[in-house]
Amino acid sequence: MTAVTIRDAFWDRIRETVRLEGIPYQWKALNDEIENAAPSYCMRNFRIAAGKESGPHGGFMFQDSDVAKWLEGVAYTLEWHPDQELEATADSAIDVIVAAQQPDGYLDTFYIINGLDKRWTNLMDCHELYVAGHMIEAAVAYYQATGKRKLLDAMIRLVEHIRSVFGPEEGKLKGYPGHPVIEMALMRLYEITQDPAHLELARFFIDQRGQEPLYFPLERKKHGNGFYWENGVLEYAYYQAHKPVREQKDAVGHSVRALYLYSGMADVARATDDETLKAACERLFESITQRRMYITGAVGSSEYGEAFTFDYDLPNDTVYAETCASIALVFFAMRMLAMNPDGRYADAMERALYNTVLSGMQLDGKRFFYVNPLEVLPEACAKDQRKRHVKAERQPWFGCACCPPNLIRLVTSLEKYVVTQENETLYVHLYMGGDISAKVGDEPVTLHVQTGYPWEGGVNISLSAEHETAFDLALRIPGWCAQYTLHVNGEAVETQAENGYIHIRRSWKNGDSVQLALDMPARVVRANPRVYENAGKAAVMRGPLVYCLEEQDNGANLHLVRMGADPQFATQWQPELLGGVVTITSCGLRETCDGWDEQTLYACERGIEIRPAELKWIPYYAWANRGANEMRVWIRT
Amino acid sequence: MTAVTIRDAFWDRIRETVRLEGIPYQWKALNDEIENAAPSYCMRNFRIAAGKESGPHGGFMFQDSDVAKWLEGVAYTLEWHPDQELEATADSAIDVIVAAQQPDGYLDTFYIINGLDKRWTNLMDCHELYVAGHMIEAAVAYYQATGKRKLLDAMIRLVEHIRSVFGPEEGKLKGYPGHPVIEMALMRLYEITQDPAHLELARFFIDQRGQEPLYFPLERKKHGNGFYWENGVLEYAYYQAHKPVREQKDAVGHSVRALYLYSGMADVARATDDETLKAACERLFESITQRRMYITGAVGSSEYGEAFTFDYDLPNDTVYAETCASIALVFFAMRMLAMNPDGRYADAMERALYNTVLSGMQLDGKRFFYVNPLEVLPEACAKDQRKRHVKAERQPWFGCACCPPNLIRLVTSLEKYVVTQENETLYVHLYMGGDISAKVGDEPVTLHVQTGYPWEGGVNISLSAEHETAFDLALRIPGWCAQYTLHVNGEAVETQAENGYIHIRRSWKNGDSVQLALDMPARVVRANPRVYENAGKAAVMRGPLVYCLEEQDNGANLHLVRMGADPQFATQWQPELLGGVVTITSCGLRETCDGWDEQTLYACERGIEIRPAELKWIPYYAWANRGANEMRVWIRT
Repeated sequence: MTAVTIRDAFWDRIRETVRLEGIPYQWKALNDEIENAAPSYCMRNFRIAAGKESGPHGGFMFQDSDVAKWLEGVAYTLEWHPDQELEATADSAIDVIVAAQQPDGYLDTFYIINGLDKRWTNLMDCHELYVAGHMIEAAVAYYQATGKRKLLDAMIRLVEHIRSVFGPEEGKLKGYPGHPVIEMALMRLYEITQDPAHLELARFFIDQRGQEPLYFPLERKKHGNGFYWENGVLEYAYYQAHKPVREQKDAVGHSVRALYLYSGMADVARATDDETLKAACERLFESITQRRMYITGAVGSSEYGEAFTFDYDLPNDTVYAETCASIALVFFAMRMLAMNPDGRYADAMERALYNTVLSGMQLDGKRFFYVNPLEVLPEACAKDQRKRHVKAERQPWFGCACCPPNLIRLVTSLEKYVVTQENETLYVHLYMGGDISAKVGDEPVTLHVQTGYPWEGGVNISLSAEHETAFDLALRIPGWCAQYTLHVNGEAVETQAENGYIHIRRSWKNGDSVQLALDMPARVVRANPRVYENAGKAAVMRGPLVYCLEEQDNGANLHLVRMGADPQFATQWQPELLGGVVTITSCGLRETCDGWDEQTLYACERGIEIRPAELKWIPYYAWANRGANEMRVWIRT
Repeated sequence: MTAVTIRDAFWDRIRETVRLEGIPYQWKALNDEIENAAPSYCMRNFRIAAGKESGPHGGFMFQDSDVAKWLEGVAYTLEWHPDQELEATADSAIDVIVAAQQPDGYLDTFYIINGLDKRWTNLMDCHELYVAGHMIEAAVAYYQATGKRKLLDAMIRLVEHIRSVFGPEEGKLKGYPGHPVIEMALMRLYEITQDPAHLELARFFIDQRGQEPLYFPLERKKHGNGFYWENGVLEYAYYQAHKPVREQKDAVGHSVRALYLYSGMADVARATDDETLKAACERLFESITQRRMYITGAVGSSEYGEAFTFDYDLPNDTVYAETCASIALVFFAMRMLAMNPDGRYADAMERALYNTVLSGMQLDGKRFFYVNPLEVLPEACAKDQRKRHVKAERQPWFGCACCPPNLIRLVTSLEKYVVTQENETLYVHLYMGGDISAKVGDEPVTLHVQTGYPWEGGVNISLSAEHETAFDLALRIPGWCAQYTLHVNGEAVETQAENGYIHIRRSWKNGDSVQLALDMPARVVRANPRVYENAGKAAVMRGPLVYCLEEQDNGANLHLVRMGADPQFATQWQPELLGGVVTITSCGLRETCDGWDEQTLYACERGIEIRPAELKWIPYYAWANRGANEMRVWIRT
């Protein structure tokens, strides 16, 4: 019902970088044409599976999903920037992919190359349903962007094959994916096809998950599969497959799997009005955002299992915080928002998007973080094995390259996250420049949005409508915003936000204007005292952006830097710095090593000298764009 | 030249516990008679190897060493508490051990049971020389305690066999142990035998270590052995076998291996007046004590490789801090002290002994810590994989049970660490009650020591001597001691410590007395600001003892407890608590969760409430004797 066009200073730079640099770069990566980067083997695997080339399968067993995510991202860019050459490249990729599909509809290069007799024998770890899910999402997006059905039809055939293998009927497997994503994908397919079989399959995977007797141990027993997580702290919770999803109260296990699953659950709950499933989603959302999420919207406290750990356990330096997990948190939050427009969901979505998601990509679009730490000492990344997963600089590519194309598909489809409509109410969730078109009843209306967000808190909206139209314009007041003013057609309006939104209900006519001004001072943020890693520390935010200190601006030994009691923040727009950022300076303190030689580890009654120090803060997402250096988000007070 | 008898309130309790509880308990463990404990298989392996029983080898390949360390401990107790029954048990163990020895002198149950054709093919990981080393140490100690040569002669035969395999001569292996200990052992054997071949073999292993081409990769290539540390941060540094020992500047790799190696190096350096080797020992000692040691005398910052990491990297919660590593630090420090009586060595020895070593054993002598953390949150030990090696309570036994018998052999042989003599100077390093007998020239003298150490700083010494005898009584002024007074025969004497010792040079006669009073206030200790984990934190010590806060006394959430600016320490002797300890109370602060519900992770401009709180500190070594609970050494200031 709504359509969004983005024309926004902040996002256009990023999206154009993705379109002009990221997409061609990643196409090269998928074809193993990047020097000094881990090879992908992705397109080669499809050519081998299609019989056009020979050789062994290369890379991980889920390598197929990389081109799927890339195709999905390409489809989104084609919606806002038609490009015949790119579309031709995508078509050629689809040709190769579909050529690999088997006569019965099956498609997974790992098993096609290594032997179809082994397919569907290790759902727990072998990612066939995951790969299928990503390819279905690509097919839907590509069909929506281009009207071309080749991949879509292939995926409908694949789903038919999957339905012949899985389902409640006798003789079919009662399994479900070790790595969710197909649940979301089937729901997107269902949106187009309206084929109840597609909804039913998604629901089957969700309902079946974690039912006793657990499928994965049975599968292991039957096929002799290994179990990496045995005797660890996670076991089947790694897969969120330890108990039925409606009984899961805490976000556990591999954080990307978790959030893909919860997103699929939300889709099914919304489509089927399933109250118990919706309640499970709400509980899990609260588990994450109230007790298990970093200030940057990152999740996954531990590298072990790339997983959630326990309440308030949020170490800043050994963190996992995968880019994909925050992308998936955006997915989940948006789906919750679609069910129930509550600002808490939009706040989490915005927090993840503007901080960890953006941090995942270098400003030039060519290097990526898998792990997004909140505290980095480069020496520790090199010399401490338990921090080796933390990199002090973004990498050109990864053997397991889930994050770069995932970033592409999110950043190129931001249109989907800006607005939702419920009958006569238009909820604006994210502020970015551009147009929002909607139909209220049969009346088309368009909101023209101008804003300097996230650097400035002013949002100006003007309305185009052929006829005067009554509707409720619900504008989000972000959780971070303590004060705001609202003018409608130049007149101040007093409003009170309800569940994170102010509602302007009126009969709107062409040329009406709304000015929302969100106060956006730099502010000191503290963590709940239960977060033991952040005791005695604070962070700085401005608007939706988390800020950090880098060694580059503040010298080494950031553990000796302190916020001070009266930071006196000053902000400055620096167009030449880091692609253009608002920097913050503050009056802080720096403890020194004066009086401590390098030979004395411990001393009695010896003080630590403290000097005033100007601190310079940059947005977290832009860190590590000037070489490897120390970085900290949480600073001692 | 010196002989020590210990009669000391503090140590007698511990040593009697070890003698009456620990030694019988561990004998049961070696014979797999402890319920609910990991089986040892140790004695069974010897019976199988001796052909008296059949079955496979059980446990680790170095399991033989457990009985060796136990025997060594038994030998020490027999020196200060003859016990025919225990000696008969030990004799029976020796009978079984020697029965397993092969005709050519070889002895290692793992290879005897699994096939002698594979012996000496994996020095890197298979511990044959390590097991031999411990057995040699046991043999020497048992011979010294009982005069019985059965095990000693067997070990001399084993060394002959080893010499037939290893050495500079053509055709012999140029290898060295993956886990050092045999170097120290051979030097102890050499002390008794004065056979230069024993010294030469120790020197060969030390000189050969890390020479190019590296032995371990050659051995791997020849025998196809695996390499667990490949591509990690350690590689051959795990074994301290990455470069020649004289070129090693930083303490690296597995911390127990490192300290056993350095101890052997110090032995050889002293016996051979090898200045370059001595210089290497000094550098490595400084690397440890100036940059890589915990306040508790623990070492090994990382569970990965149970290893040293890098300078000033001393995490308190993910620490390894193996009991054995601090025992080995005592060995190394004592050997440095024997070469050069400098208080820095005695300080490190005392720090390790009174804190991490003692922490390794429950007060009842029946449970043990392998890992000695400085900060524990029991929930994290259970739920965070990277802290799973940290236990919140001592364990009954370990599959790899190196620590418990190592503790026994150190605690039962403390006599060796009290005093050294250099010509006419008697250096007293550790203060404990008892008698120190020495010969100055031909004159026997005895110092009768009375002290309440480590609870009180008073040390009273009275002298017995048949004739007036001139010598220099050098009493250690611990590094922790800021003030002291000295009286000789009741008269105050002004002295200045030199390199950690005050020297009282006079002609002593029978009945002379010395009163040393070391001021022992509770004190605040800070870490070097370069130790980033301890920024903004301080610890409390009194005398040689590090103190800690436990949840039991101070409530949960110890991360919210603060030292406060003016702690006003008060001490109290509590004879009923934890086997009798001096507790400390202080005026601290406690941050509260007031104003923070459990649902708000982050908030802007919200303060943290602080209340005064009386803190109760107990000695670190006694923690976790009242059930699993939170504990912290470093407290926020």
